Amino acid sequence: MISFETAPDQYKHWKLSIEGAVAKLSMDVREDETLVEGYKLKLNSYDLGVDIELADAIQRIRFEHPEVRAAVISSLKPRIFCAGANIYMLGTSSHAFKVNFCKFTNETRCAIEDDSRHSGRRYIAALNGTASGGGYELAIACDEIYLVDDGNSAVSLPEVPLLGVLPGTGGLTRLVDKRRVRRDRADVFSTLAEGLKGKRAKEWGLIDDTFPTSKFEQAIEQRVHSILEGNGLPEATGQDAGAPQARMPALLQTGIKLNSLEVKATDDTRNYKFVELKLHRDKRYADLTMRGPEADLPSTPDEIQKLGDSYWPLRAFRELDDALLHLRVNEPEIGLVCVRTQGNIDKVLAADKTLTANREHWLIRETLLYMARVLRRLDLTAKSFFAIVEPGSCFAGSLFELALSSDRVYMLNHPDEKVEVAMSELNSGAFPMSNGLTRLQSRFLSEPKQVDEVLARESSFDTEAAEEAGLVTFAPDDLDWEDEIRLAIEERTSLSPDALTGMEASLRFAGPETMDTKIYGRLTAWQNWIFQRPNAVGPRGALTNYGKPTQAQFDFKRT
Amino acid sequence: MISFETAPDQYKHWKLSIEGAVAKLSMDVREDETLVEGYKLKLNSYDLGVDIELADAIQRIRFEHPEVRAAVISSLKPRIFCAGANIYMLGTSSHAFKVNFCKFTNETRCAIEDDSRHSGRRYIAALNGTASGGGYELAIACDEIYLVDDGNSAVSLPEVPLLGVLPGTGGLTRLVDKRRVRRDRADVFSTLAEGLKGKRAKEWGLIDDTFPTSKFEQAIEQRVHSILEGNGLPEATGQDAGAPQARMPALLQTGIKLNSLEVKATDDTRNYKFVELKLHRDKRYADLTMRGPEADLPSTPDEIQKLGDSYWPLRAFRELDDALLHLRVNEPEIGLVCVRTQGNIDKVLAADKTLTANREHWLIRETLLYMARVLRRLDLTAKSFFAIVEPGSCFAGSLFELALSSDRVYMLNHPDEKVEVAMSELNSGAFPMSNGLTRLQSRFLSEPKQVDEVLARESSFDTEAAEEAGLVTFAPDDLDWEDEIRLAIEERTSLSPDALTGMEASLRFAGPETMDTKIYGRLTAWQNWIFQRPNAVGPRGALTNYGKPTQAQFDFKRT
Repeated sequence: MISFETAPDQYKHWKLSIEGAVAKLSMDVREDETLVEGYKLKLNSYDLGVDIELADAIQRIRFEHPEVRAAVISSLKPRIFCAGANIYMLGTSSHAFKVNFCKFTNETRCAIEDDSRHSGRRYIAALNGTASGGGYELAIACDEIYLVDDGNSAVSLPEVPLLGVLPGTGGLTRLVDKRRVRRDRADVFSTLAEGLKGKRAKEWGLIDDTFPTSKFEQAIEQRVHSILEGNGLPEATGQDAGAPQARMPALLQTGIKLNSLEVKATDDTRNYKFVELKLHRDKRYADLTMRGPEADLPSTPDEIQKLGDSYWPLRAFRELDDALLHLRVNEPEIGLVCVRTQGNIDKVLAADKTLTANREHWLIRETLLYMARVLRRLDLTAKSFFAIVEPGSCFAGSLFELALSSDRVYMLNHPDEKVEVAMSELNSGAFPMSNGLTRLQSRFLSEPKQVDEVLARESSFDTEAAEEAGLVTFAPDDLDWEDEIRLAIEERTSLSPDALTGMEASLRFAGPETMDTKIYGRLTAWQNWIFQRPNAVGPRGALTNYGKPTQAQFDFKRT
Repeated sequence: MISFETAPDQYKHWKLSIEGAVAKLSMDVREDETLVEGYKLKLNSYDLGVDIELADAIQRIRFEHPEVRAAVISSLKPRIFCAGANIYMLGTSSHAFKVNFCKFTNETRCAIEDDSRHSGRRYIAALNGTASGGGYELAIACDEIYLVDDGNSAVSLPEVPLLGVLPGTGGLTRLVDKRRVRRDRADVFSTLAEGLKGKRAKEWGLIDDTFPTSKFEQAIEQRVHSILEGNGLPEATGQDAGAPQARMPALLQTGIKLNSLEVKATDDTRNYKFVELKLHRDKRYADLTMRGPEADLPSTPDEIQKLGDSYWPLRAFRELDDALLHLRVNEPEIGLVCVRTQGNIDKVLAADKTLTANREHWLIRETLLYMARVLRRLDLTAKSFFAIVEPGSCFAGSLFELALSSDRVYMLNHPDEKVEVAMSELNSGAFPMSNGLTRLQSRFLSEPKQVDEVLARESSFDTEAAEEAGLVTFAPDDLDWEDEIRLAIEERTSLSPDALTGMEASLRFAGPETMDTKIYGRLTAWQNWIFQRPNAVGPRGALTNYGKPTQAQFDFKRT
């Protein structure tokens, strides 16, 4: 079982050091500390274990070190920054694992960009050696890229020429959409195994600058100094244009500690403080229940900061995040997740009100941004989600986003019992989907006015009002309820899991596309396709034969 | 070898009749008239041969019958409109063929929408019986959908529940993006094998209206009448909002005849009047040369109309279109196309000037829209394209789009010989890519001013000026030229064809995404992936076992 929890004192591959307003995140991968056996992590290549640490480090910078304003990502190995995802790990992994691995590493890189865009921290990739494949893709997720000019170091995307697959972590999309490299140059670069060194790389826009070895460290320090002085921000480009660069974390704030989640797991349950997961593996579905706040929550940032990571919104969504990752990677046979909530609607709405009122406070802002990322992780999870709204549930405001993220919403229509859902101001923009829209906007693409009407309602919605407002898919009465839910589960879990994945990836993201949706929707789909073609993974495929004396032999038919 | 040329008097599956301003396009598929052996086209199901006729019919309506203002697509079979792509054909086709088949049928549906949006013809899907799968996808490409209410007929997308694949012709994207069906309803509909009948289908926005059998024909006629009266256009929605509905073809215009292309083919050449294709199959590349106009072309619409389909722009691009389709389907081993032009730059620019000056004339408008479609076909072709600019070439204006469509541009830098490229006004908007941008805008995403600067230049660009302006990738001198081109070809054709397809699909479409790019980039990629998964095409896959006594057995792991 793969665990997604870690902490800096357990890191094997990264060193995180905080020096005033600067975080130094240094890669020093230990070859033998692999997640599973069968490969060695040479040349700062990585497997999922390495990326789990990176994701954790970025998360901790945001919550534990709000004073940080610049993060420098570099390597402790000489002449090599990072060689990307480990090829032998890829070669020996199942298709499903490869796909989930790439999805997680993509989410980590998007989290870097999310931090830069919304919290104003500046990420510097200080390439003190060659960055190839996923190594360059890590760099291109940063705001600025500097490459040492030592006559040897280069940036490269050798996946197409060497491995017969695509760069799996958004590299192609970010080349043309983020850095806006001219498409013909991107074509040349992406087919050139050895990549490009400093001068040409800068000319083509692949890096921001290059410095000789003797001056490299100093140049990076100067750059960081300029950022801290606040006068060194280059003009924002691409999707970052107009970003709130100014919203720097308050220097005098101190962070909170992210403690380990306490999970109680049995063979078929996984229980956190606010999240309960029950697995029905024989029936290929799981029940995921999220509980609302138990008591009244504090309403001032100071009190919240004192609560730290036990503050309900942060704690509950950290648990949800972990549960989702667990389901993705450790429970591949689970095809459907029935999402329930349990608790007091008013308490959820009160929590939302506090979050809304204090959204400019660094901790509340980080909490909201994190909740948004977890919800996007849900949108991007290759499982079906049905929200089940029953008596005692608390699908309100932030928790109603769980229903809006679901493929369907079933809401009991009961003559005697109270069944309700409700909106809060957080549904109006705090949790954008990858496509840039709120979930209500995505839902009501055909009738935008309905978004305002739903948000304007002061009271909660009973089942009939919710159905009338278009917030639920089906509203069976109490006589039909159990049969309908049972049949819906049986039917869903009988369908082709692959077809469902593709269908959901298409239906969940109506409306505009962004760099993020392009990475997950377009690039990932192509990558998935290529990752199972014989030209990559067959006995004569390029991935299979990489590093062996045998050579890849292609079926050259173009498809 | 599959031929893409046909004409109404050769149609086996469609009847095209023109009654004044109304085209009736009726599907009556002949079961035994299949493109290859091994299946029967029951229930108006289709194979590529059926769709080639449909594409031809739409093309002819536009060029031969500009007086048509409404097209009614219906079926001559009782109780069935169209059952979609033939499952047994799909089950027995290679992966590459399935992908190319879906791409062509997608292009046909996009051509319907292109006609509606830009030429103002209104397409009515008159579903006189059940429309399932590709049958409903054909309907949803039309502007309006009417379904007979006979107690039985339904619309459906049964691909996911019955076949374990996705609707392959844009259905999922058009559901949520064109018709803006709520995502949870789209989810239910796309997993419901039997689909939805009139009342519910209308309520969910899947169709526009439903009429009982006895009143169906009359209702369609009334609707057509309203359109012809010009007072019956419902409010445009989605991407059609703001479309130039008013630009109806002049009623009094008569069309031109589209004659058969004269192709002279040998084993390794395919020569048209203005297009020459030479295949180097052993080296996996082809030379495609397009010739400019030979003599001075007429400059008034009347003269052009007299020339008819022998007018150079129309003729040359029809030939290019046919050559591209031929390469896609009949020459799968060709991975790279070297694109050249030959002729007089001034004559091309003069032709462009005439097209620009007369773009409001129906025939010129249709010609320009057609050229744009052919160029988009090139963008969407899964082969690499290198443009080769040499002495005697005429990459100017409309023909320079060939260079802009190419993955790379090689331009000879010769001290003595004249090598030039040039822009015309047509590069500023006449040929939008699927992403809605011009190719110059896509190319200069990082420096939008460069678009204006390039377009503002009055004279042509020699090699150095072209390189300076960012219009070419490489400009080798005469000493290196032959080696560079040879090496570039060798290198490109040695790479994994699958990785190249995915890479090109990612790098060619920087910037915004549209419904079209979502269909080709996102949906198609997922479809490709699913089309080769064992759950679909393995011995126990759903596609393999459809219609057999055996049942599909899935590996239920979600990926």
